[in-house]
Amino acid sequence: MSVKLNTKYLRSFVRPHELDGLAPLVAAAHQQVHQKSGLGNDFLGWVDLPFSYDKEEFARIKAAAEKIKNQSQALIVIGIGGSYLGARAAIEYIKSNNYNALKKDTPNIYFVGNTISPAYLNDILSLVDGVDFSVNVISKSGTTTEPALAFRVFKELLEQRYGVEGAKERIYATTDKARGTLKELSDKNGYETFVIPDDVGGRFSVLTAVGLLPMAVAGCDLEAVMAGAQDSAKAAEDPDLDKNDCYRYAAIRNLLYNKGYSVEVLAAYEPSFREMCEWFKQLYGESEGKDNKGLFPASVIFSTDLHSMGQYIQDGRRQLFETVIDLQQPKSDFFIKEDASNFDGLNFLAGQNMSSVNKMAMQGTILAHVKGGVPNVVLELEKMDDYSFGYLVYFFEKACAISGYLLGVNPFDQPGVEGYKNNMFALLGKPGYEELRAEIDKELAE
Amino acid sequence: MSVKLNTKYLRSFVRPHELDGLAPLVAAAHQQVHQKSGLGNDFLGWVDLPFSYDKEEFARIKAAAEKIKNQSQALIVIGIGGSYLGARAAIEYIKSNNYNALKKDTPNIYFVGNTISPAYLNDILSLVDGVDFSVNVISKSGTTTEPALAFRVFKELLEQRYGVEGAKERIYATTDKARGTLKELSDKNGYETFVIPDDVGGRFSVLTAVGLLPMAVAGCDLEAVMAGAQDSAKAAEDPDLDKNDCYRYAAIRNLLYNKGYSVEVLAAYEPSFREMCEWFKQLYGESEGKDNKGLFPASVIFSTDLHSMGQYIQDGRRQLFETVIDLQQPKSDFFIKEDASNFDGLNFLAGQNMSSVNKMAMQGTILAHVKGGVPNVVLELEKMDDYSFGYLVYFFEKACAISGYLLGVNPFDQPGVEGYKNNMFALLGKPGYEELRAEIDKELAE
Repeated sequence: MSVKLNTKYLRSFVRPHELDGLAPLVAAAHQQVHQKSGLGNDFLGWVDLPFSYDKEEFARIKAAAEKIKNQSQALIVIGIGGSYLGARAAIEYIKSNNYNALKKDTPNIYFVGNTISPAYLNDILSLVDGVDFSVNVISKSGTTTEPALAFRVFKELLEQRYGVEGAKERIYATTDKARGTLKELSDKNGYETFVIPDDVGGRFSVLTAVGLLPMAVAGCDLEAVMAGAQDSAKAAEDPDLDKNDCYRYAAIRNLLYNKGYSVEVLAAYEPSFREMCEWFKQLYGESEGKDNKGLFPASVIFSTDLHSMGQYIQDGRRQLFETVIDLQQPKSDFFIKEDASNFDGLNFLAGQNMSSVNKMAMQGTILAHVKGGVPNVVLELEKMDDYSFGYLVYFFEKACAISGYLLGVNPFDQPGVEGYKNNMFALLGKPGYEELRAEIDKELAE
Repeated sequence: MSVKLNTKYLRSFVRPHELDGLAPLVAAAHQQVHQKSGLGNDFLGWVDLPFSYDKEEFARIKAAAEKIKNQSQALIVIGIGGSYLGARAAIEYIKSNNYNALKKDTPNIYFVGNTISPAYLNDILSLVDGVDFSVNVISKSGTTTEPALAFRVFKELLEQRYGVEGAKERIYATTDKARGTLKELSDKNGYETFVIPDDVGGRFSVLTAVGLLPMAVAGCDLEAVMAGAQDSAKAAEDPDLDKNDCYRYAAIRNLLYNKGYSVEVLAAYEPSFREMCEWFKQLYGESEGKDNKGLFPASVIFSTDLHSMGQYIQDGRRQLFETVIDLQQPKSDFFIKEDASNFDGLNFLAGQNMSSVNKMAMQGTILAHVKGGVPNVVLELEKMDDYSFGYLVYFFEKACAISGYLLGVNPFDQPGVEGYKNNMFALLGKPGYEELRAEIDKELAE
């Protein structure tokens, strides 16, 4: 198992019978997922995805990645929310948070279309100046403002540089299988397309073409990723709470929330985990943050942030718990040598690997925070590689579904995301939004 | 004024008399800061810093930056917490979050010694392979584990590469003016040193040599930064709450906290603001998160994170408010052209600059979130340049001091940071920690 739950540091916060009390509710949540009987049951495609994914498309993804690697020194990935967070998290987790800067034989990956900042767009345009690049545009509809705007720009740039025919060889669209603006345009123009399945929501889509194509271009081992997801799915299938770490994690989140801990801080000790935290925040925030309920998801990278958020966690308002990623094998190591002069007094650390010091920082922090009144849930992560990425993703996805059902919400919709969009369209004068515009104008004039 | 407070979107959450009620308390907090009569009054050196800073050292900082730029293609900045967050925030805010990747005539800046991750250290070592570099080591004592470990490594590398004499010309120490391991070593070895003043805590130190040297190397205009801080200090000097946006921001944070909003989400619409948010989180989290009190500081970059945290903010548990950075002039712009085919239906956006769309996204989001029950405090920021950085930094620092005093805490200490450190030292077998080690062993064996 790549991920194991350690509940040792919860003993002073959770009594043994509490999980027993939740077992029947977890069983009910399990039924909702596996019998597709719960809220949002049109979006359960991710459950069997590690087994049922389209093998023909999988092969096409790998072939497209090879073509991109041969043709380009950069891949522009256009997408927002679930259409980029997973791939970015994967590349940093599996490769490095310094992926682009490091020497390598795979293209740089630039994520665009996830902001309306012109400064950011101009930066990326200057980074591909004189650089051969390809584009992977990821959008179910093709009309979401941020990615659609970016696609206009990079499509035009490709067509200017390589001609309309040449551009077709460099544009890959991940979109709806049959409908929508981007699908239509792709069919008309002859772009190769990959599918965002109808029954997999954005934040659950990293193991579809949405995540897999950029990951393959960055040199991730897709077979290993899917193998990890498969093993994770098998391990998380058992409805018996005692035997299912994934479900116990979900149950513990729920019971801590009900005790008044309303903020969950995901804590890892590797900078390359930072974007994984962002992926996690979307997954849980968007799945559970509704109907005026839900844990507020936050994250820290330690020991770095022990020197920024550490004081608050140790001693601030007692409203949070931590979920700590306890990495068992470091990605690489560094041996600490003796210094003859011991000018810094650090020789007590000499003769061991830096990863051991990192581990002791974690151990020391857990003990200190628990003493400070912060429940610590520990997830032991075997290593940070392709396999464990697939494993961890599925673990968090399944736990999120169970946790959402325990909270009584639909874990698979995101109705609140429309609010700002409608207002924005009205303010921008989009046809069809005239009434809302009149309302807003009145509101703003007050 | 570079920063103006807009309270228009608080009307449904805060009644007019509420600020009146806080005015006498704010006046008392003002006295504590300006008469140095409050808790932590040994650490008020930041208050007059924009005027009283050491001009001779300021000139030396600029000269050292020139020397570094001439000698090196990379600067390794070694520091943790307040010893790196400010400089990193400044460089991204003033230059770009893509600073290192972009073409430029200033060195790359790599921040190390802020983590115990060996993978991260190995990455940076590979990035300076064959690259001429200098080191700025920033530590009051010189014995903090993370930076001290990193300094050992990069000092040795410099000495191997350039000889002991050559290394001296490439090492700059920002440290205590008279005492401590790093000061002693620097004097012995002949490194140029800069001062971390005794009365300026780490999280308030960005306008000292701590922040200024890396900023100068990256090409920031230090005069403009200090001019911004000066104007900000003058604007925030008036004890009259009605005339002091900085104090009103502090008061509003306090009254929202007292109404049950216990999470503050700082929201900006520029990716280059991301590390500024991290600086903000340290400033407020470490200053206020104590005695089991304080707002939990979090942050988002919109519209990006509207597609991850947006659902939660719109419709999750009602425990948060937002502080929104409303940028008045974009760093750069991008004109949206008409597309003849209008394949994506985006022509309703054509004929205007992208910054206008970004602005409408902000406007639409504020209205939607307010309707969803989220108080929105708006800070209008004139632009993102050197001057406004200094202005904003001082604004947040002064507001933080006032806010901390309103909460009844010492805004300038951080006793909770020691907990994990002591445990870690004990676990690592540091001499002098034998008793604590025995306690921990007992605890872990249970």
